[in-house]
Amino acid sequence: MSTELRNAALKYAREQKQRFLDDLIAFSAIPSVSTDPERSADVQQTAEWVAKRLEALNFDNIKIYPTAKHPVVYAENLAAGANAPTVLIYGHYDVQPAEPLDKWDSAPFEPQIRGENLYARGASDMKAQVDATINATEAIIRTSKLPVNIKFMIEGEEEIGSPNLPKFMEEHKDMLACDFALNPDTGMIAPGLPTITYALRGLAYFELRLWGPEHDLHSGVFGGAVHNPAQVLAELVAGMHDEKGRVTLPGFYDSVRPLSADERAELARLPITGEWFMANTGAPALFGEEGYTPVEQVGGRPTLEVNGLISGFTGEGSKTVLPAYAMAKISCRLVPDQNPDAVHQQLLQYLEKHAPPTVRWEVVEMASAPASISSRDSRWAKAYLQAAESAWHVKPLFKREGGSVPVVTYFQKILGVESVNIGFGLPSDNMHGPNEKLHLPTWYTGIDALIHFFFNLAGS
Amino acid sequence: MSTELRNAALKYAREQKQRFLDDLIAFSAIPSVSTDPERSADVQQTAEWVAKRLEALNFDNIKIYPTAKHPVVYAENLAAGANAPTVLIYGHYDVQPAEPLDKWDSAPFEPQIRGENLYARGASDMKAQVDATINATEAIIRTSKLPVNIKFMIEGEEEIGSPNLPKFMEEHKDMLACDFALNPDTGMIAPGLPTITYALRGLAYFELRLWGPEHDLHSGVFGGAVHNPAQVLAELVAGMHDEKGRVTLPGFYDSVRPLSADERAELARLPITGEWFMANTGAPALFGEEGYTPVEQVGGRPTLEVNGLISGFTGEGSKTVLPAYAMAKISCRLVPDQNPDAVHQQLLQYLEKHAPPTVRWEVVEMASAPASISSRDSRWAKAYLQAAESAWHVKPLFKREGGSVPVVTYFQKILGVESVNIGFGLPSDNMHGPNEKLHLPTWYTGIDALIHFFFNLAGS
Repeated sequence: MSTELRNAALKYAREQKQRFLDDLIAFSAIPSVSTDPERSADVQQTAEWVAKRLEALNFDNIKIYPTAKHPVVYAENLAAGANAPTVLIYGHYDVQPAEPLDKWDSAPFEPQIRGENLYARGASDMKAQVDATINATEAIIRTSKLPVNIKFMIEGEEEIGSPNLPKFMEEHKDMLACDFALNPDTGMIAPGLPTITYALRGLAYFELRLWGPEHDLHSGVFGGAVHNPAQVLAELVAGMHDEKGRVTLPGFYDSVRPLSADERAELARLPITGEWFMANTGAPALFGEEGYTPVEQVGGRPTLEVNGLISGFTGEGSKTVLPAYAMAKISCRLVPDQNPDAVHQQLLQYLEKHAPPTVRWEVVEMASAPASISSRDSRWAKAYLQAAESAWHVKPLFKREGGSVPVVTYFQKILGVESVNIGFGLPSDNMHGPNEKLHLPTWYTGIDALIHFFFNLAGS
Repeated sequence: MSTELRNAALKYAREQKQRFLDDLIAFSAIPSVSTDPERSADVQQTAEWVAKRLEALNFDNIKIYPTAKHPVVYAENLAAGANAPTVLIYGHYDVQPAEPLDKWDSAPFEPQIRGENLYARGASDMKAQVDATINATEAIIRTSKLPVNIKFMIEGEEEIGSPNLPKFMEEHKDMLACDFALNPDTGMIAPGLPTITYALRGLAYFELRLWGPEHDLHSGVFGGAVHNPAQVLAELVAGMHDEKGRVTLPGFYDSVRPLSADERAELARLPITGEWFMANTGAPALFGEEGYTPVEQVGGRPTLEVNGLISGFTGEGSKTVLPAYAMAKISCRLVPDQNPDAVHQQLLQYLEKHAPPTVRWEVVEMASAPASISSRDSRWAKAYLQAAESAWHVKPLFKREGGSVPVVTYFQKILGVESVNIGFGLPSDNMHGPNEKLHLPTWYTGIDALIHFFFNLAGS
């Protein structure tokens, strides 16, 4: 009986492939860039698009909850009843900025299929992932009934650090009550290798602003006697790493939880080598903290990255200016048990010690989230392990992820539940870069895996 | 008799003040940004404006000579005859880019008078200087006749390093033959302190481009195992100075001509102190090569400046990108006897030694000019000393200048003549920066000084 229902839903999903794709194209075409104030109407429209999809499936209590910035879409289907488990499906409908636009082969918000991929900003991160969960519920609803209670919480601020989500979750704790959360934002290691991510890095993102002279100066008339803020910025940034690739902010590693021998052994089994990193990035050589493998460097160790630099004249040609201002965007990826506020203090301490008196400076915190770790053998993780094996016919892998998903921490802290972190994005999808793409065969199989998952949860 | 003619010309200049100003406003309103390909029609129009002004004064052989890029305006008045000296007046009608536009209080190409100043891009550097020489000849021509032979050579590429001027001068050596050149592009130390600049720094301007991964990466997914090109750029730039403010390019100081004790004593008499530099720049503290005064650092020592930096995401908000590319505009100010090509090689050597294998890089030379030094007691310098004293009633100062005027080298090398380097721009004019301005009272007195100068030359 359960097998029949399962098969009916899988068959439905197969038959709806083209319509699912058309839906995804429409979803991906809306430029919901949450960091861009000029896109706020588009962000709102994207929330409405999600709400309408769930409305068509007769979800209950659908509402677009306004926040101080971008709204949260909520919907629920509790028809499975009090004895069935309740899963809170998380997602975000906002996307990263598409710049630099000239690096895209097709327009970022005019989704285009080339080969097996759909190219669009936000296709992989994470509109397709949100859409896969909706499609899986649709396949079951249209062919039988949901065997689990499902609540959707789809936010619009993930790419700017989810500033208003914790408050929303606090205020709607009862509504969001669940047995666990499904977070399909963490992707797979490679096509055909379904992956459960049990650890996520946190984030502490800053803008460092430096001022030297009051206005740009002629570099001939003043150069030599006035300290160049671009040079000072370079010196400060350069000093943030030592020659072993370690971050030099004072106390940066003090609360870093060491990787256990057991965990290092397990991570070593992942099919991700230095060659893999080079092939997937095009970097001419790798670089990282001494004493750790690339997988450990990315998954289990904290980092400090320069996300952007600007100063002076950067147009065509030569302008002999001594700039008045220089700015760096700097972010740290954090691991348990680092605290983003502590890292903020460490950065300030570093600057107080090293910034010369020839410049004035300030640090603005742009985003912050602690790291998180989930259990690898919960009932929910096992249900997904089985589901993914049914869909892909291989045993899924457990991995630590370098990216940040602050919401996983909120699930634990606010709702007291763990999350199953999965997804169908691939490392080669160019998330956050130009030519972001989604691998469609992986996505279709992912929808199958979710259908299995929902049935497994009921039987588990 | 000579005094009468002189006074008639000075009186004419006084009566024409408003018209001179109107002319200058029209001249400054044309956006002749030589580095911007979209402005080439404006650059051409500016050349025509200059030619028309000289046409109205009945100059001979007026021609706008095309070059590979922007044209040179030539005109001559040789009515003074073979026994009178011949002066070649140099100038440039092109200007620096006006960016950043949001830092201007009035539009850069809509000249505006506020207080005693005229605000416009290129007003001080150097349209007003060119115009002052034309106005001084006009004052004499309209009231008597020129006591010296005058040739004008006004180019349109100074702000991009005069790439086609040496060829033009080589090809027109006979036409340009003269006893000395007048170069009014070097300004005054302060209002009321006329200045002769006898040494100018050279320039070697480069763009350093670094590539790491093939495209921008997600800083969470890859950060820790891939070297960040913005970080590499910061490290390379930081390493270009040591802790004593000295440039670390290998061999950089090898051919630097030391400042003599006599010269250091003379430079110490200039009213330019550390306080002056702070007041004129707004820098919170000064910085420079150890063991030298600010005047020496700027006038007599070579420097390396970062003119621009760019990498990754620099817009509003936070984007967690690991950039694929980072670029710095870097320029060295050179002193005798440094060679720009040698400095280029030194930069390459530095990068070959210090750039890590995690990035690919290239260096593009954007502009280059050697430094120069002129005699302080030539007949022509003395004629200007006297003229400036007549106009300002103080003894002019001799100084070394931090800026670069490649043409001074071309006068020496191609035409075999020295130049008198003067001008009526002030250090506080914000040349090359936002809110460039011209101090009008200084400019009017400068026109008087030039009238005296032309008469002095005939009598000298």
